[in-house]
Amino acid sequence: MSPISPLFTDLYQLTMVASYRQSRKYQIPAVFELFFRNCPFDGEYAVFSGYDRVREILENFKFSSEDIQYLRTQESFAGCSEDFFQMLMTIDLRDVELHALSEGELCFARLPLLQVRGPLWKLQLLESALLNAVNFSTLVSTYARRIRLVAGDRKLIEFGMRRAQGPDGAMTATRASFLGGFDGTSNVYAAKKFAIPCVGTMAHSFVQSFTQESLAELLDQESPECRQHFLAGNSTGNLGELASFISYAKTFPHRSLLLVDTYDTIQSGLPNAIRVFEWMRSKGVSPGGIRLDSGDLVYLSKRARQMLDEAGFSEAKIFASNDLSEDVIDSLIDQGAQIDAYGIGTHLVTCQDQPALGGVYKLVELNGEPRLKISQQTEKLVLPAAKKAYRLFGKDGRMLLDYLCLRSEPAPQVGQEVFALHPTDPLKRVKVIPSQVEELLRPIFKHGRWLADESLEVSRNLSLKKMELLREDIQRRKNPAAYKVSISPALKDSFQKLFEKESPPMELR
Amino acid sequence: MSPISPLFTDLYQLTMVASYRQSRKYQIPAVFELFFRNCPFDGEYAVFSGYDRVREILENFKFSSEDIQYLRTQESFAGCSEDFFQMLMTIDLRDVELHALSEGELCFARLPLLQVRGPLWKLQLLESALLNAVNFSTLVSTYARRIRLVAGDRKLIEFGMRRAQGPDGAMTATRASFLGGFDGTSNVYAAKKFAIPCVGTMAHSFVQSFTQESLAELLDQESPECRQHFLAGNSTGNLGELASFISYAKTFPHRSLLLVDTYDTIQSGLPNAIRVFEWMRSKGVSPGGIRLDSGDLVYLSKRARQMLDEAGFSEAKIFASNDLSEDVIDSLIDQGAQIDAYGIGTHLVTCQDQPALGGVYKLVELNGEPRLKISQQTEKLVLPAAKKAYRLFGKDGRMLLDYLCLRSEPAPQVGQEVFALHPTDPLKRVKVIPSQVEELLRPIFKHGRWLADESLEVSRNLSLKKMELLREDIQRRKNPAAYKVSISPALKDSFQKLFEKESPPMELR
Repeated sequence: MSPISPLFTDLYQLTMVASYRQSRKYQIPAVFELFFRNCPFDGEYAVFSGYDRVREILENFKFSSEDIQYLRTQESFAGCSEDFFQMLMTIDLRDVELHALSEGELCFARLPLLQVRGPLWKLQLLESALLNAVNFSTLVSTYARRIRLVAGDRKLIEFGMRRAQGPDGAMTATRASFLGGFDGTSNVYAAKKFAIPCVGTMAHSFVQSFTQESLAELLDQESPECRQHFLAGNSTGNLGELASFISYAKTFPHRSLLLVDTYDTIQSGLPNAIRVFEWMRSKGVSPGGIRLDSGDLVYLSKRARQMLDEAGFSEAKIFASNDLSEDVIDSLIDQGAQIDAYGIGTHLVTCQDQPALGGVYKLVELNGEPRLKISQQTEKLVLPAAKKAYRLFGKDGRMLLDYLCLRSEPAPQVGQEVFALHPTDPLKRVKVIPSQVEELLRPIFKHGRWLADESLEVSRNLSLKKMELLREDIQRRKNPAAYKVSISPALKDSFQKLFEKESPPMELR
Repeated sequence: MSPISPLFTDLYQLTMVASYRQSRKYQIPAVFELFFRNCPFDGEYAVFSGYDRVREILENFKFSSEDIQYLRTQESFAGCSEDFFQMLMTIDLRDVELHALSEGELCFARLPLLQVRGPLWKLQLLESALLNAVNFSTLVSTYARRIRLVAGDRKLIEFGMRRAQGPDGAMTATRASFLGGFDGTSNVYAAKKFAIPCVGTMAHSFVQSFTQESLAELLDQESPECRQHFLAGNSTGNLGELASFISYAKTFPHRSLLLVDTYDTIQSGLPNAIRVFEWMRSKGVSPGGIRLDSGDLVYLSKRARQMLDEAGFSEAKIFASNDLSEDVIDSLIDQGAQIDAYGIGTHLVTCQDQPALGGVYKLVELNGEPRLKISQQTEKLVLPAAKKAYRLFGKDGRMLLDYLCLRSEPAPQVGQEVFALHPTDPLKRVKVIPSQVEELLRPIFKHGRWLADESLEVSRNLSLKKMELLREDIQRRKNPAAYKVSISPALKDSFQKLFEKESPPMELR
């Protein structure tokens, strides 16, 4: 929750820095880019987020003397010179520059999300923390956006804190899901911190904590008319449950969302809820609604809707929870479930369908020269050179493709033909005449200062708006069409030359 | 990373407390139990952990006046009395008692991991944070233990911070994986905090940052003998890579783990590494080893072993990383991969095979009376009553079953017959004559003080030792035999009576 030490990094970052120092390379100007190789959830897009933690890292990047003392005592650093520890001790990031997509912007495989420029050793030390900051947040924003696409304008509330990875996992999930299009959260601390709506109903323990005897006690304090209302006629409902509903509605008359599945939804929970709503109606108060948390949500929500409507409570909302995911919500809606609001927990905060975004942070330029990484797998290849990234739009205002080129190249111009190549497939290339050109990376940290001041609300709106500019077949949940992230001929050329130089063909004998 | 506010909770906890207060139920003594309904990863066991965060929560449970001010301004609490806010303001946990399994203890479905006793309203406020503390940690300890079972005595290092849910997700994952049997981590901050071994190699960016020209520069400073060694003969290796290896080995002669896949493992990385090891041998220094991070790890590790052995470096270790999981490591070992140490990141910190443990926290007793929750799904049913939990051992010293009974019942005795029933299946019951009986829940927090002082090392050893007492067929990775968590006849009886009272059968017409 609080800024932590630059020791929050992988050990090799520090050992590499020690070695850079010894070989006097540490000050060489470098450029790293952070990107992912595949969009999550078998999709073709992602929603970038994570500014808050990136900012926290950059604004608090100081080793304490205790940190340095710890390193001194580690065998790993036994041979390191005093200079090395001094260098760490006095680190500051005034000569580090960060360029990034706007938060909430759509992003795609191989598009740089962050470009970091500065002395090699400082960028190396930032790697692990920046990845930690961007990977999870972007993953959750993306999943939230996918659920939003499925859910239309139904309410979506994040409910996941109990299954998140500790407090800041939960906090990040809340913020990122709001940015991706959710309406609120149950996490009070996050709601306060990010100034977003907080939503809650009641738990089973509340219902369980009332008994038949509680009802008698409760009604003893009420008017004869009230007693009459709640005791008249036959009811199949559990009387403790009824007491819990009455008690809650007394405390929160205008926000009574009653949890109806503790004993039996149809036989007990709903009749009890309706009886309470009837009493409130007689006092001129409209009902909140009910929450379903188990069982067949299609059947139960339809029955609940019918029972509520028949009792004259068509304005009462039906809220559903219980292990909901993008797929489940899609299927519920498909089957005509009568649900007005969804509470999504585990699946959202763990992104069960793909629990990690494989964002990586790679050296692309050193001392003004492009650098290459090949590895044993073509998909792990890194496009060399510090790049500029443009988004080209068509006549209809929609996104055509993203275009990466060398920093020395001129920007694509509106109305002028651009030749765009696939990064690896030589048979795929296209000519584009853009009607609009957007540069995607903008400075967000420079001279030690954070420059991006948009509110979370603004980023959320951006993420909602930008989605409309993406073709529907690319938005598609299953087997989406591919969005192109292309490269310029000059970038391709630079890549080819470097490849030939660094990796001559293997000789088979 | 730091203790945070009790506002780190789901909104409904606070609204329920407001309602408890209004109906004057808030001080009623209650008991909640925290348990899970299914073991993770299709297994039959889990490894309990999370003491550190539980302790943080309990020792810092204070609302700030800013927190209270926030609540006052929320529409949700518009109708709440001043008493309610005062009550929150002055909360302390001296009348809350926590009993728990020892950390590192084996646990099973439906066994209480925590039992919390105290006034209803305080226990309600603790729910979300306690679940957040236990769920993720226990999940990771369990996954770590499963990997340890597969990996035998090979080294296991946690590498996952860049894919974790923020800093404390990463910190929890490091601690929990060490507790589950890992040997170390790459996360320096966690290594410092928990005093556990820290391990690192080098990244591709380090290798990329050296060029052919770097090699010339580097060797210019060395002896003619050294230049001769590195420039003689033909090599298929990338010369920048060679320079990076020389540089690293100069800084860390005794811990040079060289990453060999930046350009081409067999053609470049290994020949370069061997050349460096040969030079070090001439100086009397033994090689560290190599790291493989892409490609076919079976093929590459066998080839690498062969090449290293032929060059006389049988002591050089082979370290592997790249999206490793329990399944992948099992399969690598099965195919005879020659790997001495594994670095496991994403799969460990996200537990991709099952990214959330479904731990729940349920009211089981109120005012000395058992409470029941039924819901629409039998598997969501909660066993009522505050329970005692015993583990019964057989003649061979192995675990026979766990046994839950009412707190009023006498403990099972060594040598005396115990009648143990399945919690829901009436056909399953067994007689046990235990040779040893262990009570599982012990007080860890009482009168406002934390009582459990074992070190992480002790908990880790416990987790290793206890595993040996579990039958192999229950440990099995695929289709394990079920471990029994049974209940006493008196507990069964109490459950039945309560069920009949709270949930009379539905009438179908």
